[in-house]
Amino acid sequence: MSKQQPKTIQELLTPCFVVDKLILNRNAEKMLHTSKSLGVQLRPHMKTQKTLEIGELMTGGTKSTICVSTANEAIFFSKGGFKDILYAVPISEQKIHICQKLVKEGVDLKLMFTSYYGVECMKKNPRPDGAKWSAVLEVDCGYGRTGVEFDSDELVGIGKSASEADNIDFMGLYTHCGDTYDAKNVAGIQNINDSTSDRLNEAAKRLTDNGIKCLVIGTGSTPGCNQPTPKMANLTEFHPGCYIFNDLSMTMNGANLISDIAIRVATRVIDHKKSKNYLIIDCGFTALSLDGIQDGMGYEGMCSFQGHPELKLKGMTQELGKVSAASGTIDLNRYPIGTILFIYPWHACHTAALHPVYYVHDGDNVTDAYRPTRGW
Amino acid sequence: MSKQQPKTIQELLTPCFVVDKLILNRNAEKMLHTSKSLGVQLRPHMKTQKTLEIGELMTGGTKSTICVSTANEAIFFSKGGFKDILYAVPISEQKIHICQKLVKEGVDLKLMFTSYYGVECMKKNPRPDGAKWSAVLEVDCGYGRTGVEFDSDELVGIGKSASEADNIDFMGLYTHCGDTYDAKNVAGIQNINDSTSDRLNEAAKRLTDNGIKCLVIGTGSTPGCNQPTPKMANLTEFHPGCYIFNDLSMTMNGANLISDIAIRVATRVIDHKKSKNYLIIDCGFTALSLDGIQDGMGYEGMCSFQGHPELKLKGMTQELGKVSAASGTIDLNRYPIGTILFIYPWHACHTAALHPVYYVHDGDNVTDAYRPTRGW
Repeated sequence: MSKQQPKTIQELLTPCFVVDKLILNRNAEKMLHTSKSLGVQLRPHMKTQKTLEIGELMTGGTKSTICVSTANEAIFFSKGGFKDILYAVPISEQKIHICQKLVKEGVDLKLMFTSYYGVECMKKNPRPDGAKWSAVLEVDCGYGRTGVEFDSDELVGIGKSASEADNIDFMGLYTHCGDTYDAKNVAGIQNINDSTSDRLNEAAKRLTDNGIKCLVIGTGSTPGCNQPTPKMANLTEFHPGCYIFNDLSMTMNGANLISDIAIRVATRVIDHKKSKNYLIIDCGFTALSLDGIQDGMGYEGMCSFQGHPELKLKGMTQELGKVSAASGTIDLNRYPIGTILFIYPWHACHTAALHPVYYVHDGDNVTDAYRPTRGW
Repeated sequence: MSKQQPKTIQELLTPCFVVDKLILNRNAEKMLHTSKSLGVQLRPHMKTQKTLEIGELMTGGTKSTICVSTANEAIFFSKGGFKDILYAVPISEQKIHICQKLVKEGVDLKLMFTSYYGVECMKKNPRPDGAKWSAVLEVDCGYGRTGVEFDSDELVGIGKSASEADNIDFMGLYTHCGDTYDAKNVAGIQNINDSTSDRLNEAAKRLTDNGIKCLVIGTGSTPGCNQPTPKMANLTEFHPGCYIFNDLSMTMNGANLISDIAIRVATRVIDHKKSKNYLIIDCGFTALSLDGIQDGMGYEGMCSFQGHPELKLKGMTQELGKVSAASGTIDLNRYPIGTILFIYPWHACHTAALHPVYYVHDGDNVTDAYRPTRGW
């Protein structure tokens, strides 16, 4: 850490992204404990936080068995000493060339595929060291994004074509149960956990019945893994990522509590707009973002000011935010220019992605500055 | 440029941000010409593009007379040899300390203030070299964000307090007419141009009548400066920034044409989701962003696929986008996995802010890679 760096979060230049060390540690420990108690391997996803330091924390210091969302992350974490990396997006011709380079450099890289295209892609582009590509088949258990439908005929066909390929080591099945974000409450999340587990096991059974081994059966979304169910003990791997930070969107359905959120955007009041009855803060959409807000949801739920339920973010321009009263008029004198405010972001992944530095604090003391990787 | 860098935009790894050199040059030239023909000094804003190379282009090679939106940009452009920098956000105690350091390092920095607080802030925190702070007063001419109301009593009071301060060189008035983004058509934009010019001049006259000189009277928004009116010749400075890229949002009211947009996000089809009848592309909200979409506007207008009016971005997760048909069903066979698509972003400022590199191309040839600054 540079000597010039402020020693307390109150002294930090705003806007900036601050990470509470105690909550960070607790979130990391909790997920390690959850996985262990269910007998499931934790393969934490690096996509949300993208730093070596927090990655190490998420793996319990082992630097092993992680998921990444971009080739850039695979390179970054590999250079940082991480082993056993699953590149968890459907593999395509363009990206497999980078994967070939990565394994040549010694990365223990695993791929994901969703279709016959993916199988052909691996067959046509062998590992440069002559070893087999280790790969998982992505399954759609109801979320409806990527992956082959768990109950489709294609599942067995694609699984068979991969397991029969000379240069593919078919590991098993993976799913992302992102539908847990849309659940209404904890019971809703847990229903999705159970149906996802059932469907994954059903899919694995159909493959096994056809002579195709499934050593890995994995799922992972932060709401799901934050609120696990006993049925998840039937799985072999979890790959959540956002749990290390948690966020405001997940307080809506009980996936995390406000007190579980490790991240905040620090901002300051820089002006009073008396005629419009709002505060101007130095946090605009390049520091907070609307992304993750669902269509039609409006501004109301987009963030929360810690300790100030009376405040509402009315809107943002590039570098400025407008803050009004949640109801009625705001007493501007309560918030003099210079007042520091802390915002819980709506969606951790996007807000984190906007910041070149994360300031880690222990209470009021800034103890570290972590630098996430960027790009694809 | 690294030797490894692809030579054509088709070979670039996706998702990535590409900038069309010809359109970039044309946009730069056009704004220099507009300003010159109206006899107004162009002080281009660096906030949208944030690179030294494009900054130089925007200033016609002079590297002089620019606006910035963050202290970080002031440092970055100063180190890059740029002179005469206006730090165009309301100055506050926390940031004036950085400004003191900047002027100590030789930066010709100008400040902006909006209130008595700002005047006091400059009075209490003098320039370390004993010179006066050059500063402009931000005026609200109807946009309703920051700035003192053009017709308020406070305007004269604040202007007077600044002009009477021993250590302030009161330059004049600045406004941001961001309401032009919400205009319905070119006539609407031009009405705002005229009323903004009238109101700024009215405000300047009230100051002059009170013995306060206003050498600078400036306005700037890309819609306004892209569609100028003769009345704008009454002003002294323009400070638009987004015009160098332009974007899709501004095609809605005619502030720019699609053919004026210099930027696109390049993406590839990486999967077919047959059961849901959509394509999966490798562009999610960390590469494109929903920010800039107005509340309730929905997804329909959030981007446009160049040459493919039949496609619609249905939604995005962190690293993936779902593309469906604008109407009816999509013929997935028309878009094999690997197909490259180019997206015009909705709002240039936010999408640019997500990318660590801009690939500059001349036709299909990638000629340069510019690296924008980030942070505050």
